[in-house]
Amino acid sequence: MTDIIIIGGGPAGMTAALYALRAGKKVLILEKENFGGQIADSPRLENYPSIKEISGLDWASNLYEQISDLGAEFELEDVLNIKKEGNIFKVTTNYGIHESKAVIIANGVRHRRINAKNEDKFLGHGVSYCAICDGAFYKDQEVFLVGDGNTAVQYALLLSNYCTKVHVVTLFDKFFADKIIVDRLLAKENITVRHNFNLVELNGDKELKEITFEDTKTKELTAFKTNALFVAIGQIPDNEKFLPLVELDKGYILTDDEMRTKTPGLFAIGDTRKKTVRQLVTALNDASIAALNAVDLMD
Amino acid sequence: MTDIIIIGGGPAGMTAALYALRAGKKVLILEKENFGGQIADSPRLENYPSIKEISGLDWASNLYEQISDLGAEFELEDVLNIKKEGNIFKVTTNYGIHESKAVIIANGVRHRRINAKNEDKFLGHGVSYCAICDGAFYKDQEVFLVGDGNTAVQYALLLSNYCTKVHVVTLFDKFFADKIIVDRLLAKENITVRHNFNLVELNGDKELKEITFEDTKTKELTAFKTNALFVAIGQIPDNEKFLPLVELDKGYILTDDEMRTKTPGLFAIGDTRKKTVRQLVTALNDASIAALNAVDLMD
Repeated sequence: MTDIIIIGGGPAGMTAALYALRAGKKVLILEKENFGGQIADSPRLENYPSIKEISGLDWASNLYEQISDLGAEFELEDVLNIKKEGNIFKVTTNYGIHESKAVIIANGVRHRRINAKNEDKFLGHGVSYCAICDGAFYKDQEVFLVGDGNTAVQYALLLSNYCTKVHVVTLFDKFFADKIIVDRLLAKENITVRHNFNLVELNGDKELKEITFEDTKTKELTAFKTNALFVAIGQIPDNEKFLPLVELDKGYILTDDEMRTKTPGLFAIGDTRKKTVRQLVTALNDASIAALNAVDLMD
Repeated sequence: MTDIIIIGGGPAGMTAALYALRAGKKVLILEKENFGGQIADSPRLENYPSIKEISGLDWASNLYEQISDLGAEFELEDVLNIKKEGNIFKVTTNYGIHESKAVIIANGVRHRRINAKNEDKFLGHGVSYCAICDGAFYKDQEVFLVGDGNTAVQYALLLSNYCTKVHVVTLFDKFFADKIIVDRLLAKENITVRHNFNLVELNGDKELKEITFEDTKTKELTAFKTNALFVAIGQIPDNEKFLPLVELDKGYILTDDEMRTKTPGLFAIGDTRKKTVRQLVTALNDASIAALNAVDLMD
């Protein structure tokens, strides 16, 4: 049995490990895909205090090394459910069952779909939710990107470095991103912006060939030829599997200020919990608080 | 007039500036002593995610440069009070009056005194609240340190590097610091630990010569010869000057989860606000949230 199981190996999960390990606790991190979480897809962090510029991947790799040196244990396993028997948590994964005295849920969120016609059909065949992962496949081509937040704007800037043209399309009449990067986007000559456009249909054979938008005001339809559509319209949580040990609000886990869920010894941190500001530093905040509270339960 | 005045140039204040500047706002930081805040006194940070080891001074200097490049304005001025007239804040300092649309209080806390007899008399003459600032003056000497938290333990470890002996004295029967550094302290051959001792009196001529402790159980008094006493027993806030615009609890400013005080447009972040976990990452959390909320008021 370990002291603390952390579900999710992103910034929140790894930082919770950092604090728990420094307090002398045994920690097991369960991650289903890639250590680093979504930040590892971010081409450039500029708002992490004291580091002027770093790639998300480097940021996450450094933290991985930092906690490895302190003795963190890692397993690439997908958590299916959590049960609590007496004071012991039993965390069931696709490979087996792990036991611990406390559990910290840091599983983040996943990419939101537009739900346009044929969106799923072309996933991996022209449709991507991650420009950093797939952008380079479309070097020297024209690409489309749907989204209006920081991630969308960052993706557009990244793509503009090697695509001939980036067409950015937003559902509403403006961006919801930091002004500093929106200004940078607007200054790029090979980026165009179309507001008030809703993606309704994707077409092609096996590969994407054409996408159709509806003007949200005139309802007029416009089709564009393209081989690449990037979608960056936000994320959704994946927490139903933790019921009934947690309480959810629109899928996000409810906690108090100490990151406690309704089940003693079970904490939730980072993007997966209900909160208003989802930034790297707010995830780290949650992580330190949950870890110190989990440690307090044991000391 | 500037958009946002930030009171305090420590990690919280400078991070609030980082977020506000990236959102395109004008920011003025007012700091009464040294940019960097208390973290600049920390010899070694090991719990900042993604940076395995850095001095507090380097950490703060990097952030100072990061926000300078974004156009932050700085003044070394001591804030005396804040008034709100209409929607405008008037911040009075020892040099004049500055105006802004929003104010973020990030003034941290100051060192707590033991209130032993003659403690004030020997301040700067043997008594110090900052081992990183003054420790080197006592190289190759025996020194005393009073305190039981992370700062105290870190100070003891630092002093043990160049002092012949470090006598650590705590009021209660244990340390309240991270196990990882307590273990490190206990392994040092030139550090001794005395629990349940209360400092009651300091003596000497102009310079400190002797300190007297009371055993908290037997009430027996014991005097030790020493030229150096470091005190690291916590901090206290300094927020009375912001009344009546804020509400205080034991001197700490009350805010909601969005870092809002009772006065619209006035925020409080970091160690100066009422909260349970005071860590570097929790200060940065507060900073990002307050800055984004302040920006929202203006956009």
